[in-house]
Amino acid sequence: MGNYRSRLDIIADILSAASRDAKKTQIMYQANLSYKVLQRYLAEVVGASLIIFADEKQCYQLTNKGREFLEAYEKYSKTNKHVEKRLNDVATKKKVLEALCPDEQLLVNDP
Amino acid sequence: MGNYRSRLDIIADILSAASRDAKKTQIMYQANLSYKVLQRYLAEVVGASLIIFADEKQCYQLTNKGREFLEAYEKYSKTNKHVEKRLNDVATKKKVLEALCPDEQLLVNDP
Repeated sequence: MGNYRSRLDIIADILSAASRDAKKTQIMYQANLSYKVLQRYLAEVVGASLIIFADEKQCYQLTNKGREFLEAYEKYSKTNKHVEKRLNDVATKKKVLEALCPDEQLLVNDP
Repeated sequence: MGNYRSRLDIIADILSAASRDAKKTQIMYQANLSYKVLQRYLAEVVGASLIIFADEKQCYQLTNKGREFLEAYEKYSKTNKHVEKRLNDVATKKKVLEALCPDEQLLVNDP
């Protein structure tokens, strides 16, 4: 929850930058990563053939597999956000129920 | 997850039985509880004024507050089931992404 990015979020941010043909520094700024962290992730996504380094243009480009990843990520991210909202919804409904029947064992040490 | 009943599920089962005016043994069987566990929960739900013991009929009856609990529980339960399904959905979508870009650090010890 919150604004902490997961590994998959970071990879999606890198691919998103590379989808616009980007140099390493551009990816670093657009994905908002330190050089060290970018190096590690770049090795991973190049290793997984999600992006390639195009020698002639001297920049990183998205592969078809990378495009597939980004599309799958959009669906995942959308569903994930929906579920997080509904989880909050469930927690609120649960609190209503607990207020109607407080757990006495939990209240033992309350003033 | 699974079929394990939470405290709120058990209370809802007891109230559901009491909504049809029930004696203690009827609640016990309908809510599928041991006598010992029933005793503990019965004290809680009577204490919270969700059900009352009607002397004239010698049975437990639902109060308005109990009816309110049951209605709120139905909404909670429905949303909860929906969210559990969507959580499975998210997990499946996440696996697709992880297969497209396996975490090498997690694979280090694999054969």
